[in-house]
Order: sequence, then C-alpha cells, then structure tokens
Amino acid sequence: MPSYAAPTKDMQFLLHDVMKVSASDIPGYSELEADFTSAVLDEAGKLATEVLAPLNPVGDQQGCTLENGVVRTPDGFKGAYDQMRAGGWMGLDMDPEYGGQGMPYLLGTAVGEMFVSANMAFNMYQGLTHGAASAIHVHGTDVQKATYLPNMIEGRWSGTMNLTEPQCGTDLGLIRTKAEPQGDGSYKITGQKIWISAGEHDLSENIIHLVLAKIPGGPDGVKGISLFIVPKFLVNDDGSLGARNAVSCGGLEEKMGIHGNATCVMNHDGATGYLIGGMHKGMRAMFTMMNEARLGVGLQGYAQASVAYQNALGFARDRLQGRDATGAKNPDGPADPILVHPDVRRGLMAQKSFVEGARALVFWGAQMIDASHRKKDAEAEAMISLLIPVIKGFLTDKGFETCVLAQQTLGGSGFTREWGLEQYVRDARITMIYEGTNGIQSLDLVGRKLGLHGGKAMMAFFELIKTFTKENETHAALKKEFLNPLKSASKDLQSAVMYFMQNAKSPNNALAGSYDFMHLFGHVCLGLMWAKMARASYAALEAGTGDAEFYHSKITTGRFYMTRQLPEIATHLARIQAGAETVMELSAENF
Amino acid sequence: MPSYAAPTKDMQFLLHDVMKVSASDIPGYSELEADFTSAVLDEAGKLATEVLAPLNPVGDQQGCTLENGVVRTPDGFKGAYDQMRAGGWMGLDMDPEYGGQGMPYLLGTAVGEMFVSANMAFNMYQGLTHGAASAIHVHGTDVQKATYLPNMIEGRWSGTMNLTEPQCGTDLGLIRTKAEPQGDGSYKITGQKIWISAGEHDLSENIIHLVLAKIPGGPDGVKGISLFIVPKFLVNDDGSLGARNAVSCGGLEEKMGIHGNATCVMNHDGATGYLIGGMHKGMRAMFTMMNEARLGVGLQGYAQASVAYQNALGFARDRLQGRDATGAKNPDGPADPILVHPDVRRGLMAQKSFVEGARALVFWGAQMIDASHRKKDAEAEAMISLLIPVIKGFLTDKGFETCVLAQQTLGGSGFTREWGLEQYVRDARITMIYEGTNGIQSLDLVGRKLGLHGGKAMMAFFELIKTFTKENETHAALKKEFLNPLKSASKDLQSAVMYFMQNAKSPNNALAGSYDFMHLFGHVCLGLMWAKMARASYAALEAGTGDAEFYHSKITTGRFYMTRQLPEIATHLARIQAGAETVMELSAENF
Repeated sequence: MPSYAAPTKDMQFLLHDVMKVSASDIPGYSELEADFTSAVLDEAGKLATEVLAPLNPVGDQQGCTLENGVVRTPDGFKGAYDQMRAGGWMGLDMDPEYGGQGMPYLLGTAVGEMFVSANMAFNMYQGLTHGAASAIHVHGTDVQKATYLPNMIEGRWSGTMNLTEPQCGTDLGLIRTKAEPQGDGSYKITGQKIWISAGEHDLSENIIHLVLAKIPGGPDGVKGISLFIVPKFLVNDDGSLGARNAVSCGGLEEKMGIHGNATCVMNHDGATGYLIGGMHKGMRAMFTMMNEARLGVGLQGYAQASVAYQNALGFARDRLQGRDATGAKNPDGPADPILVHPDVRRGLMAQKSFVEGARALVFWGAQMIDASHRKKDAEAEAMISLLIPVIKGFLTDKGFETCVLAQQTLGGSGFTREWGLEQYVRDARITMIYEGTNGIQSLDLVGRKLGLHGGKAMMAFFELIKTFTKENETHAALKKEFLNPLKSASKDLQSAVMYFMQNAKSPNNALAGSYDFMHLFGHVCLGLMWAKMARASYAALEAGTGDAEFYHSKITTGRFYMTRQLPEIATHLARIQAGAETVMELSAENF
Repeated sequence: MPSYAAPTKDMQFLLHDVMKVSASDIPGYSELEADFTSAVLDEAGKLATEVLAPLNPVGDQQGCTLENGVVRTPDGFKGAYDQMRAGGWMGLDMDPEYGGQGMPYLLGTAVGEMFVSANMAFNMYQGLTHGAASAIHVHGTDVQKATYLPNMIEGRWSGTMNLTEPQCGTDLGLIRTKAEPQGDGSYKITGQKIWISAGEHDLSENIIHLVLAKIPGGPDGVKGISLFIVPKFLVNDDGSLGARNAVSCGGLEEKMGIHGNATCVMNHDGATGYLIGGMHKGMRAMFTMMNEARLGVGLQGYAQASVAYQNALGFARDRLQGRDATGAKNPDGPADPILVHPDVRRGLMAQKSFVEGARALVFWGAQMIDASHRKKDAEAEAMISLLIPVIKGFLTDKGFETCVLAQQTLGGSGFTREWGLEQYVRDARITMIYEGTNGIQSLDLVGRKLGLHGGKAMMAFFELIKTFTKENETHAALKKEFLNPLKSASKDLQSAVMYFMQNAKSPNNALAGSYDFMHLFGHVCLGLMWAKMARASYAALEAGTGDAEFYHSKITTGRFYMTRQLPEIATHLARIQAGAETVMELSAENF
C-alpha cells in the first residue's frame, strides 16, 4: 500500500528561507513565524498521513453509490470529514467574522497540499465548499453571508459549483438552465447540470449549490447568465433547515479516477434559488473565484506528483535488481537497489525537481493572491492573473507526466493496484481537464492575459527576471548555473511573444502556438523558482546555518532542472515559430 | 461507446505506394498483390470492427474471475476466440508444415494491428500463443514441434511465457524456480511465477507454458537458466490430452488496465516440464523471440493510439462549442464544431502524424524480420535488432502520450467511462512496462545494440539516411520540407553518438542519456518514414494516379511532423550532452 509523508521541511524552507514570509508587509504575514507555521504544518501533516492517506485506496476501490437519491461516500469518509471539521481546518483562511481563523491564503495552500496529496478525492468535498463560500463572501448580501457562511466555514454545510450542461462545457453561452422570477425575490431554477463534483453526498447536513442559469428575456450568450444560490434544504429565517428543495442527484458518473468523490448529474426541477452578484452578472461572479480555483487545481497536479514521487523513491531504495555499472553497491545482497541505476535516477530527479519547483510557484502565487486581497496590491493582482493559466495548465500537465514517471519507476508493480501508483495517475488525469481544460488555459493566456492592459503584466514579468538576475549576478556559482540559463530562457519567451506580435495578421498563428507558449512560460517560471531556491540555499550554506546536506541537495536538484528540463523550451519555441499553416491546412474530411 | 474503423486505405498506401511489397525479392512477397492484401485486410477489418471492438469495454468492465482454480474470461470472449480460430487468423503467418498459412510476417503484422486496436486485452491471448509457438518452432525438437504446433497454430491450444518471479523482473539471474531432472528426460518444475498474461483461462483446451527455471548444479545467474515446456494437460503419445499437470493459477492481479486479459500468479508444484533449446540455454531461446515480441508491443502502443485518435477526431467533428476565431464555420448552428479551433487541431495533427509514422516504422520492421527469416539477410537482421528497442520504447511512450492527447480532445467526456478514451489510456500504459520496461529498452539500445559488431548497424542506419536523401534531393519540395530536416535530425543523432564515445570514461554518461537517445533515435526514424511517405505521395500526385486529396493530406501531415514534432530532438540532445553529473550526485538519503 502506498504511504505519504508530509513535506514539512521543504515547506518550511520555502516559507522562511526563500520567501521570508514573516518579514513581509502583507497584513497577517507577521504571524507566520517559523515556529507557528511548523506547528500548523505538523498538525495538518498528522491528519493527512494518519487519517486521510489510508482512506485514499478505500475511496478509489469503493467509490460512491447512489440509491433512492441518496449518495453514500466510501467507508471512513464521514469520520475523516468530522475530524477535519473538528480541527477547524475548513475555516483556516476564512473570514473570522463568520467563524474562520483568518490565516493567510498561503498557509491554507500549504495545508491544502498535504490534504490533496493524501487524498485528493476526499479533499474535493471541502475544497468545493471553500470555493462556494468564497464566492458568497465576495458577492453575497449581508443576509446571504450571515445565512450561509458560518455553517459552510464550519463544514456543517458543504458547497458546489453547477456550471456544465450536456451541450456546454467550455462554451457557457449555450447554457439552457432557466431561472424564473417568482415575485418574492426568489427564482425557480429548471435544468440539468452534469459533472457536478460533490453534488450530493452524506458528509454534511446541507449542500449549498451555486448554479449558473439564464433569466428569460435577458441578453443572449454569456451576457445573460446569472448566478444563484440553490440550497439542498431551504433555510428558515431562524437558520434552521426547512423544506427539501427540488434539486436532486439523477446519476453518478463512471469515470477514470477520483472515485471517492461523487460526480453527479444534478436535476433542478423548479428548485428555489436566490440571485447572487446581480442580474446577468453570473460570469463576473464566477470569474472572481477563478484565480483561486485554478491555483487549487494546479496545486492538485503537483500534490499528486509529490506523493507519487515519494512512493517511487521508496521503491527505488528497496527494490534489488541488477548491479551498478561502476561496481556493486550492495555486494552482500543478491543485487543493488535500483536507485543506483542512472536511468532510474534520471526519472526520480525529474520528479523531484518538478515537485519542488512547482510547490515554490504555487506558494508564490498564493502569496500574490494574499497581496491582492489583503494589501489591495494591483501589481500582484495583475501578475497572478497572468500566471494563473500557466500554474493551472503547466503544473497539471507536468503533474500527470510526473505521476506516470513515478509509476514507471516501479516497473510492473506500478501497473498493479496494490502499489497505488496507478491511482495517482488516474486521479491526477482530471486536473488537466476540469476548471477549464489546459487547452482553454492556453487560450486564456495568449488570447486574453498576454495583451491585458497593453501587455503590462507580461512586461512586469520580464522586468522581474531582469531585476532578479541583476541583483544576484555577483554570485559566480549562482550566475553560471542558474542566472545564465534563466536569462536565456526568458529571452526565448520574449522571442515567442515577438513571434505572436509579428504574425498577428491571422489569430491562428498565436492560437496554434498557445499551448507551447504556456509550457515555455511554465519552464521559465520554474527556472526562476529554482534560481530563488538556489540563492537561498547558497546563502544558508555560506552563513553556515541549518542542514548543509539539505541545501546541497536543493542546489543539485535545481541544477538538474536547469540543465535537463529547461531545454524543453527549445522544442516549444520551434513549434510556436512553425506557425499555424500545417495545423489549419486539412479540411475536416481529410483528417 | 467508442468505435473502430479499420485503416485499410492507410495500410494499402504503405504496402503498395511506399513499400511496393509485391515487387520485393523476399520469398513470399510476390503474393502480396494489392487486391490480395486488400481482401485479407477487409476480412480482418470486419472481424475487428464487428466482433472484437464491441467486446473491448465489456472486457474492461467485467474483467476476469478466478474460482476454484478456474479463470473465466469476460462474456463474449469465447465466442470471439472461436470466430478468430474459424477464420484461420491465428496461423496466418505460421509454417504451413504445421497448419499455418505461411503468409509473410508483415501481413500478420498489419492484421494484428487491427485486432489490437479493436481489443488489445483480447488479442493478447492469441498474441502470446503466437510467441510461444514461434519459440517451439525455432528451438523445439521435431517431436516437440509435431506435438504442440498444429494445435497451437489452430488455436485449439494456447501458449504463455513464464519469466517473472516476485524477486526478479528485469534481473532474471535471480530466478529461483527449480527444474529437477527425473531421469526419463522430463523435469519437475517448482516455483512461483507472477504477472503471467493469459496464464489461465477458458478459451482453449490446453495451455502450453514456456517456463524459465534453473537446473540445480548449473552456473549462477543468467547462464544457469533453461527453458521448459510445461503443458497444463500432459499430452499422450497419440496426441490426446492426458493428466492435469501440477501448474495452476494461484491468483489474478488487480491492475490499471487490460482487464480482459487474465494476469496470473502461476504456481508450479513439481509440474512436469520438458527442456527446450538446450540445457542452460534458456536465455538464448528467449532472446531469439525478443525481436518479434518487442515489435508486437511497439505495435500495441501505436494501435491503441490509432483507435484513440479515430474517436477523438469523431468527437471533434461533432461537438459544437465556441466559434472559429476567423469567422463562424457553422453559422446556422449554436456553435462551430471544435475541429475549427487551432489548439484542437494541434492535438489531432500530433495524434495523426504519430500514428501514421509509427505504422510505417513497424511495417518496415516487420519487413526486415521477413528478410532476415526468409532471405537470411544478415544486414536486415542487424538493422532490426538495432531498431527494436526504439520501436518498443519510443512507440509505446508516444503511443500512450497520444492516447492521453486523444482523451484530452474530448474534454470532460474523455474522463468518463462512457466514451471509452480512458480505457485506451489505461490499456496503453502497460506497453511502456512489459516485455522489458522502456528504461531497459534504452539500456539495450545504448549498452548493447549501439556498439554491436563495432557499431556496424548504427553506421548502416546513417548510411541509409544519406543514400535516401541523396537519391531524392532533385525533388525541390521534398528536399526543402523533408530531406533537409531529416538530415539535420540525423546529424543530431550522430552528435549524440559522438558524445557517448567522447565521454565513455564513465559508463554513467551514456546510461544517463540512454532514454533521451532512444527518443531522439525514434524521431529520426519517424522523420525518415514521413520522408518516404511524402516521396510516394508526391510521386502519385505527379503521376496523377489515385486520390489526390489523400496524398495531399499525407504530405501535410508529414510536414506537421517535420516542423512540429521533430524539434523535440533539440531537447533530447541537450539532455544527453548534460551528462550524468546532476543525475548521479545525490546520495540515496539526500533525495
């Protein structure tokens, strides 16, 4: 059976050596002293390793069941959910006014990584609640906030997002679900939603659905979409649960992974709903939640890779097969551990260097979200908006790839259910699809974010790299191993932007290169993260503080990334510069 | 539900336009006239599409069951197996002396692709029989051949390979299964084998296991391994079935995919076995089968990609979502088919250009195996031995990647069981692992094949590219679009070889680059294939014969490959030239 160990040391390194969070002027960050974050991470790690991780294969194998409209989650999920509630984890970074603990989103992100690594399908129940509660927090009226938030933040009630319909996933303008005004301020919602994660289950006392629907007579397309609160049980004025609403689960989807999470067909049969965020302003209300939701999916990508890597490494240390080509390392045993073999190490270093680089990127992203919310930092807001499609698209593609690589480390054992690696692969696969497929992320990046405010955020990113390299190039080792390749990677990214600008006569030239651009950009981000981690590691080594082996290992891992992963950029740039011609040439019949 | 259409037109193009098989001097090839191969492929296509493909999801969902030692295959498998037997498909390319039809291996390969695309798990039952029968054909005595081959070729009996044990997969020197001589020429085989595909089932009347075991007192390691025939039912002198042998299925493996195939623990409890291929010569006997077995797995990789691509394309033609950025293509509908979007096309062209290039490579490989067997062509034998790890490793890595890409084309539908794409991904995953993991393929390539006979085969490969480009460079379009990039790719492959030679002081430099070398080599092979297909297409267009749209589409698809896939070479070369340093640096504890 697979196991999970909380990566507290790596997280502490990021928060304190690299990001120096407690010295930040973002409101709330001064509380994030090393002792405090260490205590929180240790507690979260215990819950993750002891309670959630053992339920991961259980959830996969049992899945959810639907009987007479009731969805049952796998054995043990309810108990784990109650433990998570009791620990106050669900409100860790939520508003204290409604019962949250008011911690920075960054800390919630670190804790969230552990829960996702341990049991992604399980953690989705509370993750979706978090998203729905955030939407109500930003867009709800005071009454709506008072009605729903305290119970959601406590985990007594859970939440969902109801967007997709059979005829529309990406193209929400095609939504058919209707919302008819009832004259009393409420609406009757009618329509079918599909692929609703955590749409129905037995973990919470009530489920608060956020539903996209169209009010008849409104504008066509996305401009006529509004957002509604549709509770499973209506809530009485005194806050107690009232009548069962006309929203129900019509079926569970059979799918490749995340079997522990109920993916529901939700039928709204004239269900009572309450408008939130203004008439026809549903897309805007949805989009303000998008950054966090997509950062969360990027996190899922590398969090699955993280636990997959841990198990691959454990296997490689134990499994005896073959001999080191330069001489036996375990001469008294029947063979050497496979960790001696260069090709096995190549796979493991690729896994390790991705996971640690990705974590740094997501933590940085969470910090920018904090800066944007807590400090009203418009530059941080613009930068994270630019990076969100990269974080979501690149980290989930690479997260899945890393799980596949980890599975490969185990050879035949990787294909068996017993070792658990194949579940990580199946579960990680969804992250490339939901919350906007990665193709959609790349379109958002190239079609929207790149040119936003005259390309200001993109220029700020290049400026950031320039400043960072300039500030640090007196350090010879850092310069040679990290800053030079980073500068060259950033130059390639600039060449790609230039290509798009020079070939803008047809939008297809940019659109055909968007996916490769997202990956190229992702590599530059991870290159920057590794340069930052290397700088912090050199500084600690030179100061003689902490665990020297740990810092040496960081530098080596970073050098692996710079010399062996960053070169993927060459491929992406060549593809971008190949343009749209061969992509667009064939007629539909000639494929 | 997914569907499958037999790619007869593409196969005919390869056999006749590109390879001109009926003009070949390989014995038996003159029979392969276009009308004949077309008739055979049509018949095979019917069986594949009408009988095997509908059983693919059934096999996945039901899996196999073990009860009281009896393994039951999924509903419909027995009927399909009997139809396959009745059609004579199992002996298509087997020796007529034992009931086969004596067709070239190339034709068997083309037919096999269809069966694998339609239902990989099902086809493994007869695929393993084919492998075991071939081993007996090459290494068996006349009596052994007469005893086993006619029934195996007819499909009345099936076959398996028993290699792996719990403590040894790759490192067969660690085998513990014992074979004790009984004085009457037979042996008693004792030991446990795991992961035995088709080890026990209800499709055939007898199962002929080929088992690796050690005769006590023999040399240590792989030099002491012998191969044994261990029939499930002993065979009486008159050919009738005798006593049940002491070999039995002790359990079925739960695994990620190929659920329709029974993956068995096989317990040999003093089972009667017969030596084949000479005492302590088991590895040699196994290895003579290796080329065909590994080519077959490479075929599985692209065959799964082929059917996955077909279904992704069908979805992209039908699914209406969003509008063409350059203007609506389906103005009367609610949205345009997603095939209009450049990023969707990028994915589909990547799928198409891989599948068609891979098919050309495997067909060429099969032709070389025919040349080696039927014409005793030593150069063909050396070339196919060099290419086998590339065919197995590169085509299965890319085949899996292509299935993932096809799944992505479907967005959320790709993750559901209903659409079937997720099964192709899960089934294709095993091809990267079995018959020697792809890491092992890369070691075989760099550690063994590259230097074989002083690197003669590798030099012959470079010579072949040189000759081909020289012969054709008077064709301006071919030169510009295909020959120039091919030459440049071949030069990069030479640089990689050069790097290994110049850094041979530590074997780790080559071993750490072996995987990237395998991929670099694979791209050069597919580049050559596309150049050959383009040459044939230009020739047909210039002659004004056949379907011009078809040939134009081939050229465009080839140009896509040359401009957008071949550039992956730059990444692989950079990685190879980065050497082993960062790969080998960390101690086991510091990972």
